[in-house]
Amino acid sequence: MSKTGAGNFFEDFRIGQVIKHATPRTITVGDVALYNGLFGPRFAVQSSDVFARAIGYPRSPVDDLLVFHIVFGKSVPDVSLNAVANLGYAAFRVLAPVYPGDTLNAVSEVIGLKENSSRKTGIVFVRTTGCRQDGGKVLEYVRWVMVRKRDEAAPAPGDHVPRLATVLDPKILSEACPPINVAAYDFAISGNKYRFGDYQVGERIDHVDGITVEEAEHMTATRLYQNTARIHFDLFGAKQGRFGRRLIYGGHVISLARALSFNGFANAFHVAAINGGRHVAPLFAGGTVFAWSEVLAKAELPGREDVGALRLRTVATCDRPCTDFPYKTGDEYDPTVLLDLDYWVLIPR
Amino acid sequence: MSKTGAGNFFEDFRIGQVIKHATPRTITVGDVALYNGLFGPRFAVQSSDVFARAIGYPRSPVDDLLVFHIVFGKSVPDVSLNAVANLGYAAFRVLAPVYPGDTLNAVSEVIGLKENSSRKTGIVFVRTTGCRQDGGKVLEYVRWVMVRKRDEAAPAPGDHVPRLATVLDPKILSEACPPINVAAYDFAISGNKYRFGDYQVGERIDHVDGITVEEAEHMTATRLYQNTARIHFDLFGAKQGRFGRRLIYGGHVISLARALSFNGFANAFHVAAINGGRHVAPLFAGGTVFAWSEVLAKAELPGREDVGALRLRTVATCDRPCTDFPYKTGDEYDPTVLLDLDYWVLIPR
Amino acid sequence: MSKTGAGNFFEDFRIGQVIKHATPRTITVGDVALYNGLFGPRFAVQSSDVFARAIGYPRSPVDDLLVFHIVFGKSVPDVSLNAVANLGYAAFRVLAPVYPGDTLNAVSEVIGLKENSSRKTGIVFVRTTGCRQDGGKVLEYVRWVMVRKRDEAAPAPGDHVPRLATVLDPKILSEACPPINVAAYDFAISGNKYRFGDYQVGERIDHVDGITVEEAEHMTATRLYQNTARIHFDLFGAKQGRFGRRLIYGGHVISLARALSFNGFANAFHVAAINGGRHVAPLFAGGTVFAWSEVLAKAELPGREDVGALRLRTVATCDRPCTDFPYKTGDEYDPTVLLDLDYWVLIPR
Repeated sequence: MSKTGAGNFFEDFRIGQVIKHATPRTITVGDVALYNGLFGPRFAVQSSDVFARAIGYPRSPVDDLLVFHIVFGKSVPDVSLNAVANLGYAAFRVLAPVYPGDTLNAVSEVIGLKENSSRKTGIVFVRTTGCRQDGGKVLEYVRWVMVRKRDEAAPAPGDHVPRLATVLDPKILSEACPPINVAAYDFAISGNKYRFGDYQVGERIDHVDGITVEEAEHMTATRLYQNTARIHFDLFGAKQGRFGRRLIYGGHVISLARALSFNGFANAFHVAAINGGRHVAPLFAGGTVFAWSEVLAKAELPGREDVGALRLRTVATCDRPCTDFPYKTGDEYDPTVLLDLDYWVLIPR
Repeated sequence: MSKTGAGNFFEDFRIGQVIKHATPRTITVGDVALYNGLFGPRFAVQSSDVFARAIGYPRSPVDDLLVFHIVFGKSVPDVSLNAVANLGYAAFRVLAPVYPGDTLNAVSEVIGLKENSSRKTGIVFVRTTGCRQDGGKVLEYVRWVMVRKRDEAAPAPGDHVPRLATVLDPKILSEACPPINVAAYDFAISGNKYRFGDYQVGERIDHVDGITVEEAEHMTATRLYQNTARIHFDLFGAKQGRFGRRLIYGGHVISLARALSFNGFANAFHVAAINGGRHVAPLFAGGTVFAWSEVLAKAELPGREDVGALRLRTVATCDRPCTDFPYKTGDEYDPTVLLDLDYWVLIPR
Repeated sequence: MSKTGAGNFFEDFRIGQVIKHATPRTITVGDVALYNGLFGPRFAVQSSDVFARAIGYPRSPVDDLLVFHIVFGKSVPDVSLNAVANLGYAAFRVLAPVYPGDTLNAVSEVIGLKENSSRKTGIVFVRTTGCRQDGGKVLEYVRWVMVRKRDEAAPAPGDHVPRLATVLDPKILSEACPPINVAAYDFAISGNKYRFGDYQVGERIDHVDGITVEEAEHMTATRLYQNTARIHFDLFGAKQGRFGRRLIYGGHVISLARALSFNGFANAFHVAAINGGRHVAPLFAGGTVFAWSEVLAKAELPGREDVGALRLRTVATCDRPCTDFPYKTGDEYDPTVLLDLDYWVLIPR
């Protein structure tokens, strides 16, 4: 019997199955520095302990997306090592801030299974939860992924597609955000002066800047998350595959788009939830990522006078500046679109 | 009105204008590690807490140039986003040591403005100051930069070229250096045995080693500093520009030259001041940086028996070993020269 | 007299000579994060402070190989700056765990010298020891390296080849491992369930995954270790040398192979000793590293019921998956083999 993990195939999953993932991981200021070097985020709350303390955090929290990538990375060896495609995210909620020194664990529950008509693959829906050392939940999300079968003749292990909210209720968005002392939030050094009230539903913002991605960068990021998906690291194997080259982890594009969105949303300091996300096209090294956003909705939060929520659609493109907001023609995405992300951010009122 | 920062154009500046820059930044041991990985400095004071404590620091201070890059980075979105060229530095002084855990802010004052005869651009002189969380100044320097006008017809916003010292007075060089216990400075493990008294004015030293720069490296460094100048990151845009490729942040060359200078100046542990610096030519990825230095002057420091100051000219070149000290022919720089830096370092007596 | 270090040539060494190396180095969580980003190790003891504390460590120890690389790096300017080839390692023992905050020093003793028949080079054998700030030894190993002579006519400085154990006695393997509370070792999240008793002598395991190496990655790693060997960094010089390109530090392959070996040896949390190691062929950027291992022996450790030792041969290859365990035909290595490493790891019983 092999001692190496070959990962699960479609027929290995069961509805209700719970998988504890390896490896537990203590997050440090070293991880934060490397994340900063790879993406260049500038949100003041995550950048300055002094700024964070002034408004009510004990110190700078770890970037919400770095927490996500680490939790996601743990699920790869069990959930998506035999994936053909990572299809989408939904019901993504940040439940508590994470600080350097915290240790994260991850667990996934299989909540849906649907064999494809080819019988060669099936779609696996998992709800993955990230927990702190004290057991407190810090993050949960649903993702679905198309996974190969080991044996085409194997019976489908289940047939259930879960119903998922397409938009998370704003009522639950403020769990990971402590009460903010807005009077102490220094808009003079936070990047711009715009608050909740300054954004309009329907407003579109081009984030202007572009960042080119190198092989060394995405591999370093993805290893930092202990994500083991081979397609990101193995050029020898990739040359024989459908792309002929290494594929960049989709989460890399999300982090770049988030960092770029500072130029326009400098005070949207917290990603509270992701309603849905889709990797429309793969990104390869050498591509330059641009992004734009639209304010889809605004929401006040129950009991919170300090912060409000903006629902954003952020679209990332490859080798295509976003001055004219490229998106879809009818149901067809513009061929330069990489990412279509629908999410809630919190911003001072 | 756009919520994205388009940066200031020449006509937007005013003499005496004071600009507080985003984003405040807590420096950590993570930043130090990444800086070490990108440049490979070996000065014992910055490398070993034990060594630093033995001679009088509370712990290893952060590399002076890392502090500079972070302060500089903050000024980019306000000062040089529309720059054609970064022309020079002067009156650069390190005013206090910075330790991991300190949080830096930056502010710039416009001290000079001079429209060019083409009326398409102008030169902006700013004095930028880096401050700690307690308001204490850690660094200040003047830089001047050629900035585009938004509208050629706009009147010049001022006409004043500041007078700047070409050499900083050695009297003010020791502010950021605590009293050093030279008896506890272990020359057996600091890299070489040479002290203040061992260097002669006019002495030239080839730093021997060369380091090639990759795209991933300079982009990671420059993002770490939260420097947003597009030309360093955006290959798509750069292809349509005058260089056809990404330009490496000039400060990257300064840090490489400083790290290389360890081979010859192993005990010159503190960059106290920069009299003047010029980026003679741009560096692109794939280039290999070499460097050599000349001792321009030596100075004892008032009230200090522990350390003395060496005034160095360090010249960095691209793809050109420095065994024969390439510099100028008449007024013309050798075509391989990247950097001409005139600065003061402190070294034990 | 030159103030730059030209390194020692063969005739500069003497049997019994002791060399204290520059530069002392405090290891931080920043170093650990960068190491994780560059290699992607997933051993739970090094990844999670919580996991480490549960089983008996005060916190996560620093990866044994990161400690090795830092100690090794210090020895380069004195021992191998004029090396033609790094020939081998032996008698490599980890003597104490290292934690973030510890400061390392290194010292080497020359224990053998043997001129080659060409009289152009000679082999230098050194025993290098890494020490903590309190003087406690953390690591020692012997390496031998072929070093150029400055002057072919110089007499050989000695003629002695030391006798080195080919296999380290298991009795001495547990010095750096505190007593482990195996009941608290959570095999559900450590990567797999296999313990000492589950491995058989002669068992071979393909580690499946491949990792491609980029120039930026190996240079960043090697600078992090303050290793100054020019061939890793200087493309300009390398173009004129025997390879025509930069050579990747051999230790980079060891760290990649160790990280890959998690897939099969997830609980082999500690590299206790290296019996012998050979860099069979050089690795260049763009190559994809694969690895497989064979269990050469198993040993119980005196007085230890908690952990046992596995003696492994790990073979790393370039651009060659290891499903069929490529190694040697007769005495000839398979041309894809990069590394042949014979070492002891500890694993819970």
